[in-house]
Amino acid sequence: MARYIVEVMPKPEILDPQGKAIGAGLDRLGFSGFAVRQGKRFELEHDGEPTPEVLEQVKKAAETLLANTIIEDVVGVYPAEDGAK
Amino acid sequence: MARYIVEVMPKPEILDPQGKAIGAGLDRLGFSGFAVRQGKRFELEHDGEPTPEVLEQVKKAAETLLANTIIEDVVGVYPAEDGAK
Repeated sequence: MARYIVEVMPKPEILDPQGKAIGAGLDRLGFSGFAVRQGKRFELEHDGEPTPEVLEQVKKAAETLLANTIIEDVVGVYPAEDGAK
Repeated sequence: MARYIVEVMPKPEILDPQGKAIGAGLDRLGFSGFAVRQGKRFELEHDGEPTPEVLEQVKKAAETLLANTIIEDVVGVYPAEDGAK
């Protein structure tokens, strides 16, 4: 069983109202001085061993479906260490 | 300017319909054999230098606001390398 992590973030120039709201929420809770951006983190499990071919597939899947490449960037695609939850 | 990454995933025992839907979507696009779980990835920017105290604050903020600890786990809190987008 191979596991891969895909990380997707909004493009820097894209307005991130959710991130702004979270930043304001942190402020109210006493965590001041933080600017927040929220993105997505995917864990993909695949039968069989981690191979470069499967990693290539995961990269394609990330660009095709996991990120809306008009407003988001895929910022990370890598095999998960066994310890990752 | 210090930057921190917080990673939040649904607890393993929690049903993840969104992940299931994405897995089915990948299947339809020809990426077969993938089980998908979707979580959240936050980037927190903080004025000043990265210090252990600020990292501690980020961990508390993660458990307090960024994750709904009833259904989610905080699976990662770490300073971002400069290269991270």
